[in-house]
Amino acid sequence: MTNDHYFMKLALDLASTAKGKTNPNPLVGAVIVKDGMIVGSGLHRKAGEPHAEVHAFHMAGDHARGATLYVTLEPCSHFGKTPPCANLVKESGVSRVVIAMRDPNPLVAGRGIKILEDAGIEVEVGVLEQEARRLNERFIHNMLTQMPFVISKVAMTLDGKIAAYNGDSKWVSGEASRQKVHYLRNEVDAILVGIGTVLADDPMLTTRIPEGGKNPIRIIIDSGLRTPLEAKITDCSEAETWIFTHEGVDEEKEAALLAKGVQVYAAPQGEGLDLTFILKQLYELGITDLLVEGGGEVNSAFLREGLINKFQVYIAPKVLGGRHSLTPFTGKDVETMAEAVELEFDSVEHIGEDLLITAYPKQQTES
Amino acid sequence: MTNDHYFMKLALDLASTAKGKTNPNPLVGAVIVKDGMIVGSGLHRKAGEPHAEVHAFHMAGDHARGATLYVTLEPCSHFGKTPPCANLVKESGVSRVVIAMRDPNPLVAGRGIKILEDAGIEVEVGVLEQEARRLNERFIHNMLTQMPFVISKVAMTLDGKIAAYNGDSKWVSGEASRQKVHYLRNEVDAILVGIGTVLADDPMLTTRIPEGGKNPIRIIIDSGLRTPLEAKITDCSEAETWIFTHEGVDEEKEAALLAKGVQVYAAPQGEGLDLTFILKQLYELGITDLLVEGGGEVNSAFLREGLINKFQVYIAPKVLGGRHSLTPFTGKDVETMAEAVELEFDSVEHIGEDLLITAYPKQQTES
Repeated sequence: MTNDHYFMKLALDLASTAKGKTNPNPLVGAVIVKDGMIVGSGLHRKAGEPHAEVHAFHMAGDHARGATLYVTLEPCSHFGKTPPCANLVKESGVSRVVIAMRDPNPLVAGRGIKILEDAGIEVEVGVLEQEARRLNERFIHNMLTQMPFVISKVAMTLDGKIAAYNGDSKWVSGEASRQKVHYLRNEVDAILVGIGTVLADDPMLTTRIPEGGKNPIRIIIDSGLRTPLEAKITDCSEAETWIFTHEGVDEEKEAALLAKGVQVYAAPQGEGLDLTFILKQLYELGITDLLVEGGGEVNSAFLREGLINKFQVYIAPKVLGGRHSLTPFTGKDVETMAEAVELEFDSVEHIGEDLLITAYPKQQTES
Repeated sequence: MTNDHYFMKLALDLASTAKGKTNPNPLVGAVIVKDGMIVGSGLHRKAGEPHAEVHAFHMAGDHARGATLYVTLEPCSHFGKTPPCANLVKESGVSRVVIAMRDPNPLVAGRGIKILEDAGIEVEVGVLEQEARRLNERFIHNMLTQMPFVISKVAMTLDGKIAAYNGDSKWVSGEASRQKVHYLRNEVDAILVGIGTVLADDPMLTTRIPEGGKNPIRIIIDSGLRTPLEAKITDCSEAETWIFTHEGVDEEKEAALLAKGVQVYAAPQGEGLDLTFILKQLYELGITDLLVEGGGEVNSAFLREGLINKFQVYIAPKVLGGRHSLTPFTGKDVETMAEAVELEFDSVEHIGEDLLITAYPKQQTES
């Protein structure tokens, strides 16, 4: 590992500690190094707060002169809630800047780098780029598609069952896995299920972790507006609930849901509700990442439209069997194995007695 | 790692190279160590050939005096095809014997050790015992149950599908996984499928590896004797085929199958053919391990009767979906998730782009 890798890794590690807290902004870390010592360090903690570079230069003060800045993302070149960091870097007196990756927004990519180069600063781009891209997979996807980053989470037995035929699923995965899912909920802006899951399981979909945590907005795909008024999820005292339904549904039911604080949105309907429309609308409403914890039908609808950006599959050490047991992806029948959606496995972790397999759609990993 | 662990590991590594070739005997390795140097080494290569200790002492000659013998299994105390090794050890002049595990046959366990101890040799038992038990899992199971060791092999997508609803399954797993399965076939005495698989896929079930390899005996569970005479598996020129069927089936069909060289056995029938009866009969016929590559019904029948000793699940990086896609374990519907058969994950390997998960039934690992 070269020095550049070493310090960039530190900057990435700093950045990653703010996971889930910077939305819609990216995770960014920065360290300023002079004579082998870190003279300044910082990270972006929350939207509206200073960028990573600002914290690092504030700490470094005059020590920044002649130093090297390591930053996980190209310094910004525009006036947002804070002045452009590229100008700050230019004026700091650093002689070299190492950047993990360019700004993923094609409209501004390279502008920050140009400001630095025009000021005579030596700039190197691409150190630990893959790690930086993985760290900001959500932000990059947002910039490129204007849609939330969609994570499909599944908990199944080793023979691919999520419940008995009658829906009984208590419990597929172990305590440690269920706890980890609550930490995932704590990191995302929203969580989505289908009406089938609401009717079968009456879930809360809130975050239950010792630290308290933040509840994601709960989104229900419910074309017939069948969500019962007594469903736990319609209690909006702890977390928001948004229902996407078809236009022209029962107005009385809608009014009753609205009265409980539920928000109801209409979406065009084809074979099911138009998921791309819903994702675009969610992004406009500020949702940058979305955890899909659907049953087989909702999961499969997202799958078939190519809308899943990351798969997290918990496998419990058990085999259920059963001819009509429920499986994680169902939907319209497919005729050949060749129609399967191809993925790439990214990692396998042991979570308690379970396994957690993380995978990405094949084309996405290759891009 | 102590010296004892180091040399026992070597003995285990020697033994394991004969995997699949010693049936019905166990895998055994031995090294004789004097002043830190291996003066003798050997392994059991094949039933009827000398035991591991014989090779090792033959190499060691007089160097065995005062040396330490490391052997992966308690030296035998009975006259079989070869004289008892315990006597050989006693007469060799070694002063210390380290044994990984006692003989699993309860009728003779401890007898070999007693011969050594009575001769004044220092004996230590249990070094790398868990590794030794895993290495000889097949042999231990044979000794304790008089039944073949049953390995259930499954190849599925990440969403637990083995084929589309119509049976199309070309290909679930990648080239590397399929090749590895052929090496597994090369190691086992027999391979078993249900009549459903024969009718749907018309498989050969032979071993196709560059080294040639050995074909397992092909066993079909076919209660109605529906195996077509033109099925590839009825060609017995390369490998044997045994059909287990119900008593009193079509005698003409049976005669035609026999004429092709197929062997037909009768088994009592309850809900399906009596699998425990079949396994006991297979063991009497010399089958010590059995690879079940069934469809969901056969797999599930073995599962529900607690007859699977090891699970090998290949997971391909793809998601198929489809409401009626086929899954690896089906059978009678189960009412609750709590009825799942509990396992323990043993290992996860990357095989090409696929994952291979190895698991054991929970109670068995704990024993």
